[in-house]
Amino acid sequence: MTAQDNGGDQAGEDQAPKILDIPVGLDATGTRRETDSMGPVDVPADRYWGAQTQRSLIHFSIGDDRMPKAVYRAYGYVKQAAAIVNGRGGRLPAWKADLIEKVADEVIAGKLDDHFPLYVWQTGSGTQSNMNVNEVISNRAIQLAGGELGSKSPIHPNDHINMGQSSNDTFPTAVHIAAVKAVHEHLLPSVQALRQAIETKAEQWHDVVKIGRTHLEDAVPLTVGQEWSGYAHQLAQAVDRVTDSAQGLYELAAGGTAVGTGLNAPPGFAEQVAAEIASATGYPFTTAANKFAAQGGLDAMAGASAGLRALAVPLMKIANDIRWLASGPRCGLGELILPANEPGSSIMPGKVNPTQCEAMLMVCIQVLCEDSAIAFAGSQGNFELNAMRPMIINNFLHAATILADACTKLREYCIEGTELSRGQIDDYVDRSLMLVTALSPVIGYDKASAIAHKAGDEGTTLREAALASGYIDAEAFDRIVDPAAMAGLTERHG
Amino acid sequence: MTAQDNGGDQAGEDQAPKILDIPVGLDATGTRRETDSMGPVDVPADRYWGAQTQRSLIHFSIGDDRMPKAVYRAYGYVKQAAAIVNGRGGRLPAWKADLIEKVADEVIAGKLDDHFPLYVWQTGSGTQSNMNVNEVISNRAIQLAGGELGSKSPIHPNDHINMGQSSNDTFPTAVHIAAVKAVHEHLLPSVQALRQAIETKAEQWHDVVKIGRTHLEDAVPLTVGQEWSGYAHQLAQAVDRVTDSAQGLYELAAGGTAVGTGLNAPPGFAEQVAAEIASATGYPFTTAANKFAAQGGLDAMAGASAGLRALAVPLMKIANDIRWLASGPRCGLGELILPANEPGSSIMPGKVNPTQCEAMLMVCIQVLCEDSAIAFAGSQGNFELNAMRPMIINNFLHAATILADACTKLREYCIEGTELSRGQIDDYVDRSLMLVTALSPVIGYDKASAIAHKAGDEGTTLREAALASGYIDAEAFDRIVDPAAMAGLTERHG
Amino acid sequence: MTAQDNGGDQAGEDQAPKILDIPVGLDATGTRRETDSMGPVDVPADRYWGAQTQRSLIHFSIGDDRMPKAVYRAYGYVKQAAAIVNGRGGRLPAWKADLIEKVADEVIAGKLDDHFPLYVWQTGSGTQSNMNVNEVISNRAIQLAGGELGSKSPIHPNDHINMGQSSNDTFPTAVHIAAVKAVHEHLLPSVQALRQAIETKAEQWHDVVKIGRTHLEDAVPLTVGQEWSGYAHQLAQAVDRVTDSAQGLYELAAGGTAVGTGLNAPPGFAEQVAAEIASATGYPFTTAANKFAAQGGLDAMAGASAGLRALAVPLMKIANDIRWLASGPRCGLGELILPANEPGSSIMPGKVNPTQCEAMLMVCIQVLCEDSAIAFAGSQGNFELNAMRPMIINNFLHAATILADACTKLREYCIEGTELSRGQIDDYVDRSLMLVTALSPVIGYDKASAIAHKAGDEGTTLREAALASGYIDAEAFDRIVDPAAMAGLTERHG
Amino acid sequence: MTAQDNGGDQAGEDQAPKILDIPVGLDATGTRRETDSMGPVDVPADRYWGAQTQRSLIHFSIGDDRMPKAVYRAYGYVKQAAAIVNGRGGRLPAWKADLIEKVADEVIAGKLDDHFPLYVWQTGSGTQSNMNVNEVISNRAIQLAGGELGSKSPIHPNDHINMGQSSNDTFPTAVHIAAVKAVHEHLLPSVQALRQAIETKAEQWHDVVKIGRTHLEDAVPLTVGQEWSGYAHQLAQAVDRVTDSAQGLYELAAGGTAVGTGLNAPPGFAEQVAAEIASATGYPFTTAANKFAAQGGLDAMAGASAGLRALAVPLMKIANDIRWLASGPRCGLGELILPANEPGSSIMPGKVNPTQCEAMLMVCIQVLCEDSAIAFAGSQGNFELNAMRPMIINNFLHAATILADACTKLREYCIEGTELSRGQIDDYVDRSLMLVTALSPVIGYDKASAIAHKAGDEGTTLREAALASGYIDAEAFDRIVDPAAMAGLTERHG
Repeated sequence: MTAQDNGGDQAGEDQAPKILDIPVGLDATGTRRETDSMGPVDVPADRYWGAQTQRSLIHFSIGDDRMPKAVYRAYGYVKQAAAIVNGRGGRLPAWKADLIEKVADEVIAGKLDDHFPLYVWQTGSGTQSNMNVNEVISNRAIQLAGGELGSKSPIHPNDHINMGQSSNDTFPTAVHIAAVKAVHEHLLPSVQALRQAIETKAEQWHDVVKIGRTHLEDAVPLTVGQEWSGYAHQLAQAVDRVTDSAQGLYELAAGGTAVGTGLNAPPGFAEQVAAEIASATGYPFTTAANKFAAQGGLDAMAGASAGLRALAVPLMKIANDIRWLASGPRCGLGELILPANEPGSSIMPGKVNPTQCEAMLMVCIQVLCEDSAIAFAGSQGNFELNAMRPMIINNFLHAATILADACTKLREYCIEGTELSRGQIDDYVDRSLMLVTALSPVIGYDKASAIAHKAGDEGTTLREAALASGYIDAEAFDRIVDPAAMAGLTERHG
Repeated sequence: MTAQDNGGDQAGEDQAPKILDIPVGLDATGTRRETDSMGPVDVPADRYWGAQTQRSLIHFSIGDDRMPKAVYRAYGYVKQAAAIVNGRGGRLPAWKADLIEKVADEVIAGKLDDHFPLYVWQTGSGTQSNMNVNEVISNRAIQLAGGELGSKSPIHPNDHINMGQSSNDTFPTAVHIAAVKAVHEHLLPSVQALRQAIETKAEQWHDVVKIGRTHLEDAVPLTVGQEWSGYAHQLAQAVDRVTDSAQGLYELAAGGTAVGTGLNAPPGFAEQVAAEIASATGYPFTTAANKFAAQGGLDAMAGASAGLRALAVPLMKIANDIRWLASGPRCGLGELILPANEPGSSIMPGKVNPTQCEAMLMVCIQVLCEDSAIAFAGSQGNFELNAMRPMIINNFLHAATILADACTKLREYCIEGTELSRGQIDDYVDRSLMLVTALSPVIGYDKASAIAHKAGDEGTTLREAALASGYIDAEAFDRIVDPAAMAGLTERHG
Repeated sequence: MTAQDNGGDQAGEDQAPKILDIPVGLDATGTRRETDSMGPVDVPADRYWGAQTQRSLIHFSIGDDRMPKAVYRAYGYVKQAAAIVNGRGGRLPAWKADLIEKVADEVIAGKLDDHFPLYVWQTGSGTQSNMNVNEVISNRAIQLAGGELGSKSPIHPNDHINMGQSSNDTFPTAVHIAAVKAVHEHLLPSVQALRQAIETKAEQWHDVVKIGRTHLEDAVPLTVGQEWSGYAHQLAQAVDRVTDSAQGLYELAAGGTAVGTGLNAPPGFAEQVAAEIASATGYPFTTAANKFAAQGGLDAMAGASAGLRALAVPLMKIANDIRWLASGPRCGLGELILPANEPGSSIMPGKVNPTQCEAMLMVCIQVLCEDSAIAFAGSQGNFELNAMRPMIINNFLHAATILADACTKLREYCIEGTELSRGQIDDYVDRSLMLVTALSPVIGYDKASAIAHKAGDEGTTLREAALASGYIDAEAFDRIVDPAAMAGLTERHG
Repeated sequence: MTAQDNGGDQAGEDQAPKILDIPVGLDATGTRRETDSMGPVDVPADRYWGAQTQRSLIHFSIGDDRMPKAVYRAYGYVKQAAAIVNGRGGRLPAWKADLIEKVADEVIAGKLDDHFPLYVWQTGSGTQSNMNVNEVISNRAIQLAGGELGSKSPIHPNDHINMGQSSNDTFPTAVHIAAVKAVHEHLLPSVQALRQAIETKAEQWHDVVKIGRTHLEDAVPLTVGQEWSGYAHQLAQAVDRVTDSAQGLYELAAGGTAVGTGLNAPPGFAEQVAAEIASATGYPFTTAANKFAAQGGLDAMAGASAGLRALAVPLMKIANDIRWLASGPRCGLGELILPANEPGSSIMPGKVNPTQCEAMLMVCIQVLCEDSAIAFAGSQGNFELNAMRPMIINNFLHAATILADACTKLREYCIEGTELSRGQIDDYVDRSLMLVTALSPVIGYDKASAIAHKAGDEGTTLREAALASGYIDAEAFDRIVDPAAMAGLTERHG
């Protein structure tokens, strides 16, 4: 017996079996007997999972929230990297390492998704999901090696698939991989496309002067382009915040094993596994500088979640602005015309509603609260483990997904088709009294104020009130009170 | 043309068609052309839904959160009640009312669940889900009447299924029904069973004296039964809070139609619909006293959600207590022995973890945050509508469901099998210095304090330090410092 | 030595000293030496507090949040009740009981407020605040008895003032008293006055027909009175929720002492103390049915806090509605005219903003988040104590106070002076296309929808489009499309 | 009249008055008449503020939350920078600029703190606080120029102090300055000192082997130093997150004026003001790249607040760990001995509690919820203004302050005095069964598991069970199961 390879059936370690070419799937019905340290359990015969997965299914059928498949696919990278490093280090025979690597590829590709049935609400370390992965890869490898399912030989779920690993270091590693991919491959492209669509509108409407509003009240003018440039800029900054906030995810716990000391993992294992994962995924993953922090806390996830929140905050503002500016059509602000995607009312014929904006608002509130849940859970670690991990990754991936999709839908079905109601926009500028502000540097705040109050009280135009006040003559008024100049479109004349 | 019945094909109003006996289902492939006020749309030929549902599917595929089926089943009651009342009032021919009533029964029974595919993230009024119900009932009724799907004749989705209704009053009505059923038929029975299981343990352990702990520090003794009676009482009070908080759900908006005025609904419609729903469901539903409040706000839902929170708060405390009391087995508090449901670690052989407690903790944090989401959304109404309804009911039903299931699992797989580690419990009582408190009324706080500090500093027992202090003699010490008496199990002797 | 009275200087127990008539205050400078079980500490000579208070001031100067005075005043009731019961039971000589009762009256009246300096952020049980009360009453009583400050004789802070008590039962008791008073004496009157003011407006404007808005979009008409009746009703229901939610506060922990067993408190003590507190305060306080729940949890406070949230949710909606309806004056909705309380802008002369509404919105968000903090903290108890008490009462009283004051200000400086802009309101009704809804029961949803779309596309009035459509004649149109009737003001004509 | 200087008394613009040398303070009693555009108001004669401040005091006395003085001191920098730039640009006579600059220095130094009385709950733009600053600087400058208070001459609050400014750009500017200073001058130094103190302990205890705990259950060993290195690392990473998150605060809105267009501010004003502020404060402030984003949103504040949360999350974990590890002294984990700062109980003599940890826990919960309030408020902007600014800065500064102070207290009164209970720590290592993990790579997971279960069931030591199992001999057991090696202290032997 060697220390390098001890589990399962040690006979025949030196002879690699022929690896069969069998597609994913178990052509069997009924149940199969599997065992773990607590004894035997029957599992569905057409599933690769083993005893521990089955126990978890029984004990944790809470709601219908399943651990996201993205976590398992990410786990594929972890198991693959460990097998490569273990094989390279001679702890695992080459053919076993190769076989695990091959099956891990199937996991990564989602081909084994149907074999990962566990609930989110399980043990707080994700151990049962790690064992689910170990069991599935083990049995799939056994199948390919022509062995007997459930025999744990020649590929043992703990001794081989989990070699040099613990749930406590690999689950957070898989979580980080899944989170990074969600952020970079789904969320950010969707937000960037939305930002770009808004920027395009900002450019298109760069010279349309409109009334500004502060406190919901008429204020001085700006251009529609300026207003939308603000939206685009908010999103650009949010993209930066998301990106920065996700940096901490590149640090991986793998190699810390049970409590962060790396017991049962050889020297260099952590660094090599991180390097393999970086290579396979294309992201700059590295090993966490301090495994006790990485496993005892969930700070990197809470930090990354703050990035999601950084998106939800401005998106809520933008969605609200758009639905308000489009309110009406005849009894609201009516500056924008949104695409009519569906009949708006089951009782009021012809009604059109800002439904994409409403969906976005609800998504944003959901994200804000899921982010709070992550921070709350992040605060509840104890000693060498934060045992709130499944809910944290579930909330994170959910929030990232609905944000991404809502951005895509808002862009496609609202922003890109939005048009201006030029008549309404022009009317407001003409009517507003706040153009008086331009007079303030010339005649002083107090006199300007008197003019505005006079116009308001008497229901006249600002120009009428200004000329009537005697503080300013017509020529000066017309020169100074120039909305386009006030908005900075043309040169201002004091 | 009559005002009572105007939509669809008015020919043949007076002659009821033969109602066929066809099981639910459409034996067709490909697509079917459906129309709405915006034009034609192709829908899957094997689905009952119509144009508006299909539009929503296209525009709102955000994440994979679907409107809970419970909402649609509840909607079945609403549509059924409206048909009955409209039939009785002569606004709908009897055969149409009967037919709608019949299909509504199928909706209530969940037989049409597969035809309600919409996403949570949609219009904030739930209009599209209302139309989904209208369209499905219409087409199913048309099928039973031998008509042509999509023809809206002889049963029109708006004019007949939605008669006297709006999404703005029926969606909140369905939401209330679904919420009441979730609370009373799933959540409360589960919590009550958990409370009962805890109470049983409290009785079983009523005379086991253990050390109390405040600030995590050793305190005066109590019995295990007392400690667990506290848990049971917290849950009993939470049950009351859930029940009280859900009272507001009995008020239904139905009859308010578009903005609360009841336009297009006849006098008495609101009261009669509520009465029918009460009769069909067995809950004391009534019509909301003020429809403007019921439709403009979501206060009843936010109020009911506070009941869910009232459960999560003590459940989190209880789950934490139990996992801490079971910590160890040799390096923790070790007073409780929890059932070993699964191997606890992929790397540490023989480890058993408090996994049910961890699942419960995560569920509680989730519920607290979903409750916050509901309150946040509840605050975001405008004018005659709160347009955050889909996310509110989704969060409510989700929170209620995972709470209910987590209570069941905790009871079955943790509480019922929990045992005491009597040796450890007794040892702690023997060791604790805080029994000194019983001396305080006799010798005064200051002298008692000196004894406790002396024993702590010198590492002696409390008795040794007490006798050495000269403040009390052995007979008095043994009489007064009696843990069972201190816990109130036997008479106290000052 | 007797068991009844053991602390301090036991000589002279039987002879009551003459009680002096000295006003509150210590005419001394510099410091005074006080002691506790850890040794001597210097305290300011002009303060009644003792060693433990002083230690807390040193160790917990965190921010500038001080435990609210209301907690100490409430504590006065607790100490007074305990003294009465202890005196009546013969455990405390009558003169001592009388003296404590007298000083407790000063505490209740706020005369000793300046002697309660401690920070919110202290021990989680509030022990240091309990000791602050014990020390101050002790020293004030010693002063009145002609004794030496800091001598703890003839009135000892622990043995006499704290007799039969622990911080773990009295602090939550004081907290409940303070919370009940805040709710009933400050918050509810303020909300009721606001509700009444809104109701008055609803009555005043009961026949003003206005356009309804759902999804911010033009909908069918209602009256201003109906809209405001919704606000009033929301507040009325919130008042009920506040009242119901606060019921749990009537259960008092006093008598549970250290861990809920009532050790060192005589039989009946809990009930008698609750009765005395009920009598003194006029509220129906009773002893908690289960002290382990009352002290281990904070569920009653979390429950009461849900009542505060139940107010914040509709108040946020109402404040938002009002500021939006008042938006403009020329480029917004402009239906309401709010009082101009202050110049609105430092740069835009003549600007008036909905500042009371904004203050209310901010208050509501603050309350929602403080309520979340209470629930979070409520979940963090362990074993026989929830050690998050100071922050919970601080958040509760703060939230109740700012809600109450914000309601008062909103009423006084906004609601009562709000006026309607009748011209604008009428214009909107005239313009809106959604009056088409009244046609729907007559001509069917689909034809009504076509008319609305036609009017919208062609920019005509609804009447023009309707008549042009040929679906309805002028007489019928004018009879049916009657805004006042649609709002239910007059009889509707189908 | 020139466009450069138009307000107040224009006579004598060219002649600078003699600037008097009068200390801050108004030696007057009763009231003084001040005016604004709404008319006259009486203000206290001994205060510098004017009519608008007084109006705000009347209308917004909500609770007792006052706008933090730090905001006003930060405003001093803004007004000073604007005066310098206006003076340099010739828009303001040099003597006026100098005088404003001089008074702004008094504001910065806190000398005028008593003249800034406004409440947090005011207009959402902070306009009234801006006007408070304008009025106070104006009147103080008038006093120094020998003028008449309230005359607004020769220094006008709007025309001179507010020249080129709006509340909408200067309030967020002041807020950013105040926030940056709070983070860098109070919070970070305090956290760094705490981190250093923890690191010192980690080094001191680097070779003390202790049992690890995951899921609260016994796990494999690590050293105390490793455990504490995790705490230090978490704080080091949190410091980075705070620092990174606060970067956005360096972008200043000043120069955007009313709606972001910069109306009434000359070209270059924004850049120059930012440069002056950078120079005066020593922080790298720059002008915001997009003023519409900076004024319409509050994203930078919400982003910075996420940094505060990033501290609260690990601090909560660390404070919890420490109080649990110190639990006991005889019935808890008992690995740590915390300093006894105060008697822990009013009823249990000699009790010592982890009070600093409890205060920290409460602070962290408060910070998490105040952070949520900031994000919520950040989402509620509309158009050209987020009108939730006062509550955001109040929560931010409050959270930063209590976090900073709590870190200082925790360090001084807990961490620095914490000692190890070596006997207890050693005992746990000896007792634990999880040392079996070291055998797993040698004999396989399944056999190792059987040994652990056997020892647990039979109550023996691990060594006894291992040898009895026959899977391993004594020599190998003793070589492999070496806690120090398992913790990585010495070389591991497989």
